[in-house]
Amino acid sequence: MSAKDIWLNKVKWSDDGLVPAIAQDAATGTVLMFAWMNREALKLTVECGEAVYWSRSRKKLWHKGEESGHVQKVKEIRVDCDEDVVLLKVEQVGGIACHTGRSHCFFQKLEQGQWVAVEPVIKDPAEIYRK
Amino acid sequence: MSAKDIWLNKVKWSDDGLVPAIAQDAATGTVLMFAWMNREALKLTVECGEAVYWSRSRKKLWHKGEESGHVQKVKEIRVDCDEDVVLLKVEQVGGIACHTGRSHCFFQKLEQGQWVAVEPVIKDPAEIYRK
Repeated sequence: MSAKDIWLNKVKWSDDGLVPAIAQDAATGTVLMFAWMNREALKLTVECGEAVYWSRSRKKLWHKGEESGHVQKVKEIRVDCDEDVVLLKVEQVGGIACHTGRSHCFFQKLEQGQWVAVEPVIKDPAEIYRK
Repeated sequence: MSAKDIWLNKVKWSDDGLVPAIAQDAATGTVLMFAWMNREALKLTVECGEAVYWSRSRKKLWHKGEESGHVQKVKEIRVDCDEDVVLLKVEQVGGIACHTGRSHCFFQKLEQGQWVAVEPVIKDPAEIYRK
């Protein structure tokens, strides 16, 4: 570990070696998505300037947009008071952060005791992810 | 469990019975803080209209602002595509979300390999939390 990785040691990784990461649109402030990062993911995010997460379901590094092209260009990185949550301010390429084809993942709003999808699908996922 | 709690069942609670919760300023879009909720916390949040979290360290419900007076009035509740992360849009009473006396918790910015505190302390925590 080199001296230039000291900032990575300040992050309080969980027992699983992860921290929650929130991606926010740098221009509009919209919260785009929530994911997890391990040490390698955060390091790669800084090095390549695009968001890299840790996929807990696939148990591998996940360069956001690797399939869809909807990468997130990182404009700023913040950590919270306890140093155990990361906030990325990003430019969302393609304007679509969600795998459902919506601009962001938080499209379900609680209205009178029901979750209602209130954001439009911008692009059909079948089109986004076709090989 | 009554029929009116069906929306609570749609939330995918972790094995520990928790979901991550992001609080965002409803007016400015600033991400204020990150915490956790269990089923009871989310239910109480809706019922009382103020953010109630689950404190993992203290292992108890935490009505945000119960000591400081800096409660969060909930304007909107969202859930993400996987139904396992909650986003609260709130009015932050007192304009201070962080226990350090800052407006929000994400005050440390990564600058050339160092975390730098870039947001001012609005009120001394000793004043906020004095009994």
